[in-house]
Amino acid sequence: MLINNNLLIDYIKNWLREDVGNFDLTSQIIVDPGIHKTFNLVVREPAIISGLEVAQSIFHQVDSELEFNTFCNDKDRVKSGFKIAVVSGKASAILTAERVVLNILQRMCGIATMTDDYVKAISHTKARLVDTRKTTPGLRLLEKYAFYCGGGKNHRFGLDSGVMLKDNHIALFGDIFEAVKRIKERAPILTKVEVECDTIAQVKASVNAGADLIMLDNMSSSEMKTAVDLVNNNIPLECSGNVNLDNIREKALTGVNYISVGAITQSATCIDIGLDA
Amino acid sequence: MLINNNLLIDYIKNWLREDVGNFDLTSQIIVDPGIHKTFNLVVREPAIISGLEVAQSIFHQVDSELEFNTFCNDKDRVKSGFKIAVVSGKASAILTAERVVLNILQRMCGIATMTDDYVKAISHTKARLVDTRKTTPGLRLLEKYAFYCGGGKNHRFGLDSGVMLKDNHIALFGDIFEAVKRIKERAPILTKVEVECDTIAQVKASVNAGADLIMLDNMSSSEMKTAVDLVNNNIPLECSGNVNLDNIREKALTGVNYISVGAITQSATCIDIGLDA
Amino acid sequence: MLINNNLLIDYIKNWLREDVGNFDLTSQIIVDPGIHKTFNLVVREPAIISGLEVAQSIFHQVDSELEFNTFCNDKDRVKSGFKIAVVSGKASAILTAERVVLNILQRMCGIATMTDDYVKAISHTKARLVDTRKTTPGLRLLEKYAFYCGGGKNHRFGLDSGVMLKDNHIALFGDIFEAVKRIKERAPILTKVEVECDTIAQVKASVNAGADLIMLDNMSSSEMKTAVDLVNNNIPLECSGNVNLDNIREKALTGVNYISVGAITQSATCIDIGLDA
Amino acid sequence: MLINNNLLIDYIKNWLREDVGNFDLTSQIIVDPGIHKTFNLVVREPAIISGLEVAQSIFHQVDSELEFNTFCNDKDRVKSGFKIAVVSGKASAILTAERVVLNILQRMCGIATMTDDYVKAISHTKARLVDTRKTTPGLRLLEKYAFYCGGGKNHRFGLDSGVMLKDNHIALFGDIFEAVKRIKERAPILTKVEVECDTIAQVKASVNAGADLIMLDNMSSSEMKTAVDLVNNNIPLECSGNVNLDNIREKALTGVNYISVGAITQSATCIDIGLDA
Amino acid sequence: MLINNNLLIDYIKNWLREDVGNFDLTSQIIVDPGIHKTFNLVVREPAIISGLEVAQSIFHQVDSELEFNTFCNDKDRVKSGFKIAVVSGKASAILTAERVVLNILQRMCGIATMTDDYVKAISHTKARLVDTRKTTPGLRLLEKYAFYCGGGKNHRFGLDSGVMLKDNHIALFGDIFEAVKRIKERAPILTKVEVECDTIAQVKASVNAGADLIMLDNMSSSEMKTAVDLVNNNIPLECSGNVNLDNIREKALTGVNYISVGAITQSATCIDIGLDA
Amino acid sequence: MLINNNLLIDYIKNWLREDVGNFDLTSQIIVDPGIHKTFNLVVREPAIISGLEVAQSIFHQVDSELEFNTFCNDKDRVKSGFKIAVVSGKASAILTAERVVLNILQRMCGIATMTDDYVKAISHTKARLVDTRKTTPGLRLLEKYAFYCGGGKNHRFGLDSGVMLKDNHIALFGDIFEAVKRIKERAPILTKVEVECDTIAQVKASVNAGADLIMLDNMSSSEMKTAVDLVNNNIPLECSGNVNLDNIREKALTGVNYISVGAITQSATCIDIGLDA
Repeated sequence: MLINNNLLIDYIKNWLREDVGNFDLTSQIIVDPGIHKTFNLVVREPAIISGLEVAQSIFHQVDSELEFNTFCNDKDRVKSGFKIAVVSGKASAILTAERVVLNILQRMCGIATMTDDYVKAISHTKARLVDTRKTTPGLRLLEKYAFYCGGGKNHRFGLDSGVMLKDNHIALFGDIFEAVKRIKERAPILTKVEVECDTIAQVKASVNAGADLIMLDNMSSSEMKTAVDLVNNNIPLECSGNVNLDNIREKALTGVNYISVGAITQSATCIDIGLDA
Repeated sequence: MLINNNLLIDYIKNWLREDVGNFDLTSQIIVDPGIHKTFNLVVREPAIISGLEVAQSIFHQVDSELEFNTFCNDKDRVKSGFKIAVVSGKASAILTAERVVLNILQRMCGIATMTDDYVKAISHTKARLVDTRKTTPGLRLLEKYAFYCGGGKNHRFGLDSGVMLKDNHIALFGDIFEAVKRIKERAPILTKVEVECDTIAQVKASVNAGADLIMLDNMSSSEMKTAVDLVNNNIPLECSGNVNLDNIREKALTGVNYISVGAITQSATCIDIGLDA
Repeated sequence: MLINNNLLIDYIKNWLREDVGNFDLTSQIIVDPGIHKTFNLVVREPAIISGLEVAQSIFHQVDSELEFNTFCNDKDRVKSGFKIAVVSGKASAILTAERVVLNILQRMCGIATMTDDYVKAISHTKARLVDTRKTTPGLRLLEKYAFYCGGGKNHRFGLDSGVMLKDNHIALFGDIFEAVKRIKERAPILTKVEVECDTIAQVKASVNAGADLIMLDNMSSSEMKTAVDLVNNNIPLECSGNVNLDNIREKALTGVNYISVGAITQSATCIDIGLDA
Repeated sequence: MLINNNLLIDYIKNWLREDVGNFDLTSQIIVDPGIHKTFNLVVREPAIISGLEVAQSIFHQVDSELEFNTFCNDKDRVKSGFKIAVVSGKASAILTAERVVLNILQRMCGIATMTDDYVKAISHTKARLVDTRKTTPGLRLLEKYAFYCGGGKNHRFGLDSGVMLKDNHIALFGDIFEAVKRIKERAPILTKVEVECDTIAQVKASVNAGADLIMLDNMSSSEMKTAVDLVNNNIPLECSGNVNLDNIREKALTGVNYISVGAITQSATCIDIGLDA
Repeated sequence: MLINNNLLIDYIKNWLREDVGNFDLTSQIIVDPGIHKTFNLVVREPAIISGLEVAQSIFHQVDSELEFNTFCNDKDRVKSGFKIAVVSGKASAILTAERVVLNILQRMCGIATMTDDYVKAISHTKARLVDTRKTTPGLRLLEKYAFYCGGGKNHRFGLDSGVMLKDNHIALFGDIFEAVKRIKERAPILTKVEVECDTIAQVKASVNAGADLIMLDNMSSSEMKTAVDLVNNNIPLECSGNVNLDNIREKALTGVNYISVGAITQSATCIDIGLDA
Repeated sequence: MLINNNLLIDYIKNWLREDVGNFDLTSQIIVDPGIHKTFNLVVREPAIISGLEVAQSIFHQVDSELEFNTFCNDKDRVKSGFKIAVVSGKASAILTAERVVLNILQRMCGIATMTDDYVKAISHTKARLVDTRKTTPGLRLLEKYAFYCGGGKNHRFGLDSGVMLKDNHIALFGDIFEAVKRIKERAPILTKVEVECDTIAQVKASVNAGADLIMLDNMSSSEMKTAVDLVNNNIPLECSGNVNLDNIREKALTGVNYISVGAITQSATCIDIGLDA
């Protein structure tokens, strides 16, 4: 999983602080610390799996002696009823961790599964599905990883790891050509510069300015085709805005390189997963 | 807003660390620090508003000199196109804060609006809509507040602020009566004890044990009516499991006091909100 | 021990930062890292024990390879001279941890032992001893646990886990009945509502308002008896104010359910415990 | 007040997190945010004051717009009933802060007042009262400041700011002379070295070794006099062990320079202070 | 200054915790809190200035009421004796902050000034000076900003904001072409991929693989010229290894686009700056 | 190594957060997690070693299963080409840790080696080399430890662990004698008081005031000799200001006890160390 492990541990610490707080009033009182049990994580609908290492890390942060074993890998497609993992050890600890594990795993699998739907919809086209910064505050790394598990590609992770000149930036600065020039002068040399364009004229200006990527924002399919012809494979083009499962293939067939969808990380429906005794 | 302000500030610090990271490569380079602008937060579809103080707090954490004014209150219903707030000041700072503000506000308004749909569906019944612990890791306080803004009532906030004896607890302990007794002996005296019941026999046992609340888990409407008759208003009853907009009214009409829905906090669709120049 | 282990680890980290700071100038310089020793924790006066897991956790945070074994359990009554635990390993690490271990253990045993005195004083009455929020800033969870070890019951742990309408709240709001109603409308459904009453009239109003608990604040024994008769076992009553070992039994005999004492967590005398070579 | 203000702010943040947690369920719901009030901090028994800046800082951390004014200074002796400070502003915020303010202020005033009793008991002798590391975990800086307010002098603040060779250190190292030599070779040059001595022979060895201070541990008064004669004012002597109000003057009259008492920071009784409307 | 302000505040908090610790024993005791003074920051040798906002932020974190005004800007060249800034307010606070301010400012100015020397040495060539990840742990953002102030360009800020395939990576993976392909498949789309090459053969392989940048590691000038001819301006080339003031111009004249120097951030000599009354 | 291990772990966490950030885009993608390798830490120039435990702790924080073994100890002098340590395990983890390990180790060895040069220059004199607070923000404990490894002695670690009355303090207070008296009254009893003197008159005043140490600031050698004669071994003297390798022996021969040098911790050149496959 592409994540600095120290960050993951800090995330989980905060989640447990939120859910457990001072203590688990029910399990710590009712379940004798000597009782050991085995529970299974079972998927209750078809899904693409994502987040197994996160689940394991949560269980281990609650009790480092819990044993956690998986029966599939992230990115795997599984059927309803599939047992994805088993956890054994102190029953009280497993019950304390349960809700946090399910909350994150259901969300990650939900994103991976929805991503997969979109990826399939543009299969055998040149276009790749990419994500956005429309993610849940605090969960970006995990949501982008889930998007990757579903077959998507990641756009930038934050404002410090890529340049995106949006309409507001250009309006405040005044000129695409000069804006790209100033950015290239000041930004770190391994960073690409993308320019958001609403018109073909802006696309031309961005090409001339030396943009590394161009985002075609809310353009019609015919405008996009014009842009594709214009850049002639010299710069990758990203299609953005009002993309859904019904129209994505049409957009892909214009010849753009990337299609970005914010709705997946923002509003994917959770996959039903249970912890069964 | 029912939240310890120091916690909110810590949340926002983490979100900005995630989205901005080391710096905002685009706005900090392109937008001259001397440029001041006014932007409006505009709702692009009908919504119940929730999270205005969170939005304000994010803007202020990026730049304490930004001015933020609202044109409605949390819990208000607004039409598509309504300008909910205006922010003025350093344009660069506003653009840096934009994505985090929109990400959380869209989610909170989405939850409030979806809650409102459910609340309306059980209007003029005795039942109140309640939330669950099925929330996004790291966002529970804000999601439960949004649920409240939509007209719902909050269930417990964490494992330390209420007792819920679930099937697993009871199975591991063996006996509802003794479990409730042990909990009441050990738990803080201002904490209520709820028992999850799958059968009418368990409901009877819970009443005898002195439970403060009883959750009827995945019961049919006729079973629920039996339970309602049985407890005869002496203890509140909560209906849980497989609730949706189509069946919630039927469940409410059984006479239960609370109906809990996890899907709202887990999978509400975001409300489209934009930051317009 | 009823505590989220992650919280305990954070507490101890802060305590060690306070006492050890940058380094232990004496032990780290004088005691060769190769020297291993065994030390005993010995109680120098009769005591109720509380805090053994805390002691173990401190030793392990200084050096995870120290071995720590106990000869009794929390809640046990031990005689003067009793060896409660033994720690073996790197002598330098044990000496670095010593003061922090003793400071917290002496305090927790002091609270447990003083609680036991009060509990004995009301034996064979209906009343249970409860604690308050008059605790040492930063040590509430541990002090309330020690209170429990001495035989007491815990009142709420913080302002978020129970409602207590005090005189100031009611004065600012104006009306007990309406105040309880507003609280019940807004507070989470597993939370009880207690009302502080100075007069019998207020007790009546609280009963009518549906309070879950009533605190009788600084009432005379005869007033308390009136209250006991009035509520007739329908709601638990808590006696509060000016309670000491001399008068607590008289108060208990009025028939109240709880008697709260702040002085135990606030001003218990430490039990003398030493770390002997 | 001799404290790094950034540390104090962090302490208070932790205390509020402990007491308020997610929110103040009572005050935030019942007290309308628009209500402003004035409350007084009143001492209910004679006391030496300590901690006014801490109280102010707590109120300001809950609500930076509260106004806080004092009618006396730390170190002042005040009578029962004296109004030490007044706080005005949002009533809800004041009530949220109340308990944390009182908990720390009552403790600090308790320590200052008890220190004053001991200081008076050795008035007009050469001896100065000093504190120890027997403090409440997490409160050392504030407790040592309160000890100073009562007229005492501070011993070292932690293991990194002074060297104290105790019996265990010497036993493990083998030789006072060599131990002092090694410490002086390695320790920072502005740090003094104190040696704990049980016998006159050890006192002699410590003098020869170049100790900067000598602690006479649990010696009889006649032994202490011998030590006083021996060192002849060349090195300060500290008397330690079993000191109480009854015997402290006798110990002071032996001619020692410092008398250390752990019981004051460990077990002082809180001063009764109230927040009156 | 290109830095997330929240990060800067956290850095400074740690620095003050390190230098001030519990308190400033000297200034807080000796300097009456009522005394106000003005001090000047004066450069004692010619320098390029960098870090004025950092200095201001430190003073304000110690005491938010200090007034700080500057007489030049970052990136300015100033003569020996130039007064770069003035700070006024509580003298005690200024003295507490002094050492931390000077320590960071002297280092940042040292880096900016040394960078300027290198930049001058390659003036009127095509080559730009770039930095490396050879920075002081904990100070990377500030050191890279200082490097920029001296006229240099920044390479990547961390392992997450750019890809650099080094000899070890390629050796472990086996093949440049496949390595670049795998990276491009998995890395975020705004990230460039640089390949470290030791031979012309590797340069060719990297070009074929679609590398965005090529680092010529420890190549001779004639090899570098061969590489420059080979890539023919299609990809930027970075020269790395054993660069110093004596040989940098020769390297620049080979036609490479970037020359990286680690020694500047790693071992620049501090500029002498004083705080004068 | 004289450091609280918990602090070291926190330092390293921050350094890794800085360098690795969200993830290591190169190693985590390119190097298969199953590949294990052995790398050697090799010194490329003669050096005094310092920081081996820090290096080990970094490797372990990235991956607790890496094996790290050393072939020398801190304080050892080694030749160019000497293999100081070997690390084995997951190749990807070793490459992620590499840069942080080298950055700190090169710096610490640089300081130790430069310290050794100065210490040799005053061999067979009475003077000992001491460090200052002119250290890199965030690295003081490690830099002072490296200084010790090179044969130097540590001055105070922070403003809370020693008193230094500087010219500014005395100017603001007015009088050396009274200043020392006030400090001694208020400071902890294990803390020494040093006074910075510019003139012989100030030296006399400091002696009379009972200073524990005197710093001779920027005095000529003949003035220093006068001071040495004056104090006649009753108080240690520290020489400070404009010390370099050329003049340090002359200063040592004046008979002072300590000579402080800030340039070593501030501007030592890093030692070249590599991680070789």
